[in-house]
Amino acid sequence: MAEQRKVLIIDCADSTGLIAKITNICFEHKLNIVRNDEFVDSEHSRFFMRTELEGSFSDSEIIDQLTKTLPTNANIRLVETGRKKIVLMVTKEPHCLGELLMKSLYGSLNAEIVAVIGNYDTLQQLTEKFGIPFHHIPHKDVDRETHEQEIKNIIDRYTPEYLVLAKFMRILTEGFVKNYPNKIINIHHSFLPAFVGAKPYHQAYQRGVKIIGATAHFVNNNLDEGPIISQDVIPVDHRYSAEQMADAGRHVEESVLTHALQQVFNEKVLVYGNRTVVFD
Amino acid sequence: MAEQRKVLIIDCADSTGLIAKITNICFEHKLNIVRNDEFVDSEHSRFFMRTELEGSFSDSEIIDQLTKTLPTNANIRLVETGRKKIVLMVTKEPHCLGELLMKSLYGSLNAEIVAVIGNYDTLQQLTEKFGIPFHHIPHKDVDRETHEQEIKNIIDRYTPEYLVLAKFMRILTEGFVKNYPNKIINIHHSFLPAFVGAKPYHQAYQRGVKIIGATAHFVNNNLDEGPIISQDVIPVDHRYSAEQMADAGRHVEESVLTHALQQVFNEKVLVYGNRTVVFD
Amino acid sequence: MAEQRKVLIIDCADSTGLIAKITNICFEHKLNIVRNDEFVDSEHSRFFMRTELEGSFSDSEIIDQLTKTLPTNANIRLVETGRKKIVLMVTKEPHCLGELLMKSLYGSLNAEIVAVIGNYDTLQQLTEKFGIPFHHIPHKDVDRETHEQEIKNIIDRYTPEYLVLAKFMRILTEGFVKNYPNKIINIHHSFLPAFVGAKPYHQAYQRGVKIIGATAHFVNNNLDEGPIISQDVIPVDHRYSAEQMADAGRHVEESVLTHALQQVFNEKVLVYGNRTVVFD
Amino acid sequence: MAEQRKVLIIDCADSTGLIAKITNICFEHKLNIVRNDEFVDSEHSRFFMRTELEGSFSDSEIIDQLTKTLPTNANIRLVETGRKKIVLMVTKEPHCLGELLMKSLYGSLNAEIVAVIGNYDTLQQLTEKFGIPFHHIPHKDVDRETHEQEIKNIIDRYTPEYLVLAKFMRILTEGFVKNYPNKIINIHHSFLPAFVGAKPYHQAYQRGVKIIGATAHFVNNNLDEGPIISQDVIPVDHRYSAEQMADAGRHVEESVLTHALQQVFNEKVLVYGNRTVVFD
Repeated sequence: MAEQRKVLIIDCADSTGLIAKITNICFEHKLNIVRNDEFVDSEHSRFFMRTELEGSFSDSEIIDQLTKTLPTNANIRLVETGRKKIVLMVTKEPHCLGELLMKSLYGSLNAEIVAVIGNYDTLQQLTEKFGIPFHHIPHKDVDRETHEQEIKNIIDRYTPEYLVLAKFMRILTEGFVKNYPNKIINIHHSFLPAFVGAKPYHQAYQRGVKIIGATAHFVNNNLDEGPIISQDVIPVDHRYSAEQMADAGRHVEESVLTHALQQVFNEKVLVYGNRTVVFD
Repeated sequence: MAEQRKVLIIDCADSTGLIAKITNICFEHKLNIVRNDEFVDSEHSRFFMRTELEGSFSDSEIIDQLTKTLPTNANIRLVETGRKKIVLMVTKEPHCLGELLMKSLYGSLNAEIVAVIGNYDTLQQLTEKFGIPFHHIPHKDVDRETHEQEIKNIIDRYTPEYLVLAKFMRILTEGFVKNYPNKIINIHHSFLPAFVGAKPYHQAYQRGVKIIGATAHFVNNNLDEGPIISQDVIPVDHRYSAEQMADAGRHVEESVLTHALQQVFNEKVLVYGNRTVVFD
Repeated sequence: MAEQRKVLIIDCADSTGLIAKITNICFEHKLNIVRNDEFVDSEHSRFFMRTELEGSFSDSEIIDQLTKTLPTNANIRLVETGRKKIVLMVTKEPHCLGELLMKSLYGSLNAEIVAVIGNYDTLQQLTEKFGIPFHHIPHKDVDRETHEQEIKNIIDRYTPEYLVLAKFMRILTEGFVKNYPNKIINIHHSFLPAFVGAKPYHQAYQRGVKIIGATAHFVNNNLDEGPIISQDVIPVDHRYSAEQMADAGRHVEESVLTHALQQVFNEKVLVYGNRTVVFD
Repeated sequence: MAEQRKVLIIDCADSTGLIAKITNICFEHKLNIVRNDEFVDSEHSRFFMRTELEGSFSDSEIIDQLTKTLPTNANIRLVETGRKKIVLMVTKEPHCLGELLMKSLYGSLNAEIVAVIGNYDTLQQLTEKFGIPFHHIPHKDVDRETHEQEIKNIIDRYTPEYLVLAKFMRILTEGFVKNYPNKIINIHHSFLPAFVGAKPYHQAYQRGVKIIGATAHFVNNNLDEGPIISQDVIPVDHRYSAEQMADAGRHVEESVLTHALQQVFNEKVLVYGNRTVVFD
């Protein structure tokens, strides 16, 4: 049997000896630990572990043993780190889409973009340059529910592992979002929780801030409130108008979104309540 | 007459030819321009200029000529850049006080700390190590108005040019603040406007942010709402408790406050409405 | 005559009154100064100025007047800030090429890529996706002189304003380079002058550095020694192999190169000796 | 027996099952793992582990068991993380000394400064403000060997755990350095390996760099060549003279040195060959 590489991801109630118990089981299976990260959230007494393993895997046996050994209700996943299948949703701005298309093309984003959905057709040509189907689902003259149902129909046809809002400028309803728990990733054009809501760069300009930023986060039912994956900032000064802040912000948006997706797709992000554990 | 160095600071309604008019007057006075910065806020049609000049100065004559030449209501200042006289206000945390005492001592802060006022006596010993008077004005068992009046009495005895809140943890009333317009500088322990108000690091922890920051700003009548001078951030991750975020944040607080003060004391900061122009 | 926007760029020996003299001429021509930056290199007694002007321009008249007024041998340019025509040179790595193709496509790079030249054909398909001609000029089995002459023939057919080495991994001879003085921009995959020469990431790994970087610079006759335009860095740690440093470095290379090009193409960079003045 | 907290630090040849074996021993001793970090250097097949443990410790028993279980020649240390005893060496510049005195005073540097040695007496007054003995050991009119012997005599009187060169501007001989292997920490005023040697800010100015930095490293027999612990940078531009670069660099020097010392004193740094593993 050939050598394989998988990632074991565990979170459970904390107790003494967890690392010993888990690594013993790996050792019995002759699996080599390539990289190992643990974290104990002492406030909530919760244990998190991510282990990159090399060897030949009897998946169900390993998971059975772990289940018997670990505290009840442990979350145990043994996953491959191959390319993820993703669907992007966009509106009119090309920069995040362009970045993801390019990085996916030459392999530095660990994902295959299987489709792009837009509520405008502005980005159709760019998408199709890369041989990827573009679905134009206009929101005009349809009610929100119908629009989201049409989007959902397209998405489900592709069975993607993640849905990425690459500057999709419509608010998604709770009804839509709950179909994809911790599977929708959004880029928000501010350093959350500053400037929640519309026109963050105009808010930032009005407030006279000296730094602007971007936030990549999972989307749950509260807009702009889901677990944060990654954030970054750049300095601005009095010479920036709101429009120039938006221009400058685009580069940060691209790079924060890409960084967050690389972490998620490489199975380095665990969601816990409204927070993330990122084994960077 | 010996060579001197002064800074000319102007803000006025924008119009064509301002730079030519101003620099002509400097040229007539045989003043050499060492450094020159301008900015036009096109939204408000306002012109800002800061000019470092070398030569021998006939101050009132220069200002007269400028006043006649520039649009009505121009603000014109011709200032020296010597050390500023400042009073610090503190509570219990030593890090910002320590930083300012040390930097002032060996000359990298362009200011002389003439007194420190504390609502606790925790930092008395540290202050007196540097030969600087410490005034303990407890807030316990006195009403707010009386307490602030006592503070004001001490301050006014020293006639400082600026008042620096170096982790002073009491909210100052509008009545107090209006005595020192654009002369009180505060360090706020968050990346404003995120986490306005009390316990920002606890708020940041709860929200699961990946970056924390600090903001130095002038204090006006609305708490945490005055013109921002400087901001900076540092990355944090899931391993930080609220207390560890506070620890990590202290270093940023120190350095943002020091940076802002260096800019203000070197006459590089112009306040305009609720925003600052910083000719860095 | 319609309103136009141009940039006046001057460098000359320093003397008193230069700003007044220059802005007076602009004022006489009823040109509005939108933005103005000056710098005096006091070590070399050299004056630099960049002025964004709005109005209607009598170019030759303005330049005549300036020439008469300014010190002998002043460099005076009055330029438009339209899109630059550029030719890229590449080898096998796609990331910088991809970034420039994408940013040029949607307008955030102020340039039109008129051709791409590669010493391998690896990047032909990516280039042609964007409708841009790709010229494969292999270096195998030809001597260096012939190879460079073939490249030069292609370049000259396009009369580009700048030549960008977007990870072109061959060393260019002095003979080639002197055809394009201050017109060739290279991205070097290290924080120069650390790790000059081949395999900088392997050198960085061996030295155990905690930060890696990239440098965009003009190319002159000494490899890796031309005037630096822009630099940036990212943190690394003990977990990075040389290959992982190279991976991580790619993102910095892309963004430093793009940033440098935006500054150059927007006429913000003046070269002086082996240094640059960047009016950012 | 009361609960204690200790850190177990291991490095040894890599082999399968090491984490299981080590954590089993901890588990048998009923020690709770508070934090755990591992690293495998696959190039050199070397395993590194740092484990924060809580419980009651039978040190020699634990180390015996580990020694029997782990590969031959494993380095095993079980240490407390209390305040380290340190001696500082300085010349004339106050900023790093000032930073360390202040941070040590209020407890944010995990160390007690037991003495300061200077080859000038410039910093005597500052040191004594903090009640710390200052030893002036002039290098004038004595040969290098005698001078270093005098310094060594002072140091050895205090039996410090680390020796910190806080801008000590003399080169130490191999003979001196080998007395304190991996116990001498230096702050170098450049982003090593750029600008090795004297006057790095003048070199940086000449080269026209856009970023300057500082490097904290262990000192071994080759000047500026020891294992790097921490590095950081700040942006500069054409307006900075060599002197202004030096001014700006001081803040980075302070903060990089402090950061490195915090990591070393908290037992987070393992030295391996000419590199460090930093479990930050």
